[in-house]
Amino acid sequence: MTGREQEVLEAIERRRRRRPRLKDEVVTLAHGAGGKATRTLIEALFLEEFGNPRLAPLADAALFDVAGARFAFTTDSYVVKPLFFPGGDIGELAVNGTVNDLAVAGARPLFLTAGFIVEEGFPTADLRRVAASVGRAARAAGVEVVAGDTKVVERGKGDGVYINTSGIGVLEHEHDLSPASVRPGDKVLVSGTLGDHGIAVMVARGSLELEVDLDSDTAPLTELVHGLLSATPGVRCLRDLTRGGLATALNEIADAANVSIVIDEAALPIRPEVNGACEILGIDPLYVANEGKLVAIVAPEALAAAYSALGSSPLGIDTEIVGEVRADAEGMVFLDTAFGGRRVVDVLVGDPLPRIC
Amino acid sequence: MTGREQEVLEAIERRRRRRPRLKDEVVTLAHGAGGKATRTLIEALFLEEFGNPRLAPLADAALFDVAGARFAFTTDSYVVKPLFFPGGDIGELAVNGTVNDLAVAGARPLFLTAGFIVEEGFPTADLRRVAASVGRAARAAGVEVVAGDTKVVERGKGDGVYINTSGIGVLEHEHDLSPASVRPGDKVLVSGTLGDHGIAVMVARGSLELEVDLDSDTAPLTELVHGLLSATPGVRCLRDLTRGGLATALNEIADAANVSIVIDEAALPIRPEVNGACEILGIDPLYVANEGKLVAIVAPEALAAAYSALGSSPLGIDTEIVGEVRADAEGMVFLDTAFGGRRVVDVLVGDPLPRIC
Repeated sequence: MTGREQEVLEAIERRRRRRPRLKDEVVTLAHGAGGKATRTLIEALFLEEFGNPRLAPLADAALFDVAGARFAFTTDSYVVKPLFFPGGDIGELAVNGTVNDLAVAGARPLFLTAGFIVEEGFPTADLRRVAASVGRAARAAGVEVVAGDTKVVERGKGDGVYINTSGIGVLEHEHDLSPASVRPGDKVLVSGTLGDHGIAVMVARGSLELEVDLDSDTAPLTELVHGLLSATPGVRCLRDLTRGGLATALNEIADAANVSIVIDEAALPIRPEVNGACEILGIDPLYVANEGKLVAIVAPEALAAAYSALGSSPLGIDTEIVGEVRADAEGMVFLDTAFGGRRVVDVLVGDPLPRIC
Repeated sequence: MTGREQEVLEAIERRRRRRPRLKDEVVTLAHGAGGKATRTLIEALFLEEFGNPRLAPLADAALFDVAGARFAFTTDSYVVKPLFFPGGDIGELAVNGTVNDLAVAGARPLFLTAGFIVEEGFPTADLRRVAASVGRAARAAGVEVVAGDTKVVERGKGDGVYINTSGIGVLEHEHDLSPASVRPGDKVLVSGTLGDHGIAVMVARGSLELEVDLDSDTAPLTELVHGLLSATPGVRCLRDLTRGGLATALNEIADAANVSIVIDEAALPIRPEVNGACEILGIDPLYVANEGKLVAIVAPEALAAAYSALGSSPLGIDTEIVGEVRADAEGMVFLDTAFGGRRVVDVLVGDPLPRIC
């Protein structure tokens, strides 16, 4: 067993020992929010019942080797409401979300599958619009949808259309992008403004009575990641910032790497519109979903190359260095506030923004 | 371009030319039944919007090559109602269904993904029961669930739990198992009794007031297929007989291969309970779903070896030779009835048994 494999096994064992118990008798919206309740459901129920060493790291994608090549394999279901929103729709999201899970695993996405669960009575014109988005997004991301499935459920047993995509990609480099690679002293970068997708969807839902001119950031991150990995061997870990936002991604990394992470509020790239909407909603933009942003943890000596590589890509022009990794207070994430204080950025409890992706 | 590739392209072009138009303004349950309406929706909408040469054959699994190895990749969503039925549940179905799509493509299934869409309020005890079934079925089929996703939708926007699985497998032999390989004179075998799954689920739904002691046949077909492919090089084409039953599978093969297929009613293995229930329901067992049966089209000289290989596997003990391939009446399927007549076995119209898988 290599030292790396040993480290991974130890991390799995640590998590197993502190595995939470599932106390809820029924599933709630919080179990779908990507935060603490989701984690509990996954660890105390799904991992318990069908876990294995490839699933246990709960990474964006699972890795496996066949015929001397290394593959990444992932899946996501999309239940966003409304189906169409400024800057995108469920079809585009279903392609980009799965492409991005492969990209941040360091893989070149190759092929997707698409499973549609359609509610009886859904207009075929809307379904065509969604399918056309799938086609456009796949072409833009350089992937092919090679297998599909369609199921129809009775009226009142769905919500228009739900889409599941799975994706397979091939790793073409030597980077080891797991949280276990993260070391104290590493730097934290985010590739652009936070919270655009979640707030754009909430505004499109119409229940907020907010007039905000904001587009979802849904986009394929393949080229951004490829540029970064080509620029420096010092990339430790990548995550795309979807459900649960930056706070959730950093908590997962800090937990898996047994480190703490401190981020600087003043450095966080957040649009004034997003900050304003979050204030009205009473939520923290750190927890709001993105669909075209990533967090990169890089070695200190790789910082300049990483910052420059991300910033030179059209999807990374708003890249910021937002924090660093510390050795103390294992598993914790802290925010240095604009007022000079420091507060804990805890894992998400509850679901402030259901059905955002 | 090889002769085989030329044939496939011609088949795609033929289908494109006669592609049906989608006239429905809304999606109906018939679009999910696997028959004529499903085919129209897929060809006139999904293929139109995101089709490509790997998706276009609409096979059980898509094939692709990476690093000198040949892979099969597939997906299916499972919306069966009720979630638990005699002989299985949605979790077992979700593993076996996707394993079988890979198996009949001639692949050894390796890894699955599982995406759960759970309705708010669903009991966690039931979810655990489903997850345990996923685990048991994966172990029995020799696959690992390596990636997953959980989404929660509001009460009244789902129906307990829907599961999507995707699967990847590797081809370890040289068989070319596409319908384009089928030739006049080939023989048709089915690996066991027809309609068990669909009728077991309908009975479990309780609306029939039928007292029938019948289990779903859900099972992984990997070993059955492996035994068959090892026994003879004369296997032309395999299909697992799920949604739409034997009638749908044979119509798809006859259509894609530009042949006709004649089956013999007296030779069809159908349990008396299934025949009885079908009579009461007014449906034809040829259209009823199975979840552990396949149809094999084999060269005439391979018939004895194929029959013996299938029959010697525990899942194939009721294997029967049920028909043969003809050159005339391209694209048609016929049934020689027990009364000496011959009737057309048309593609399924409407959905007599919704939410069966």
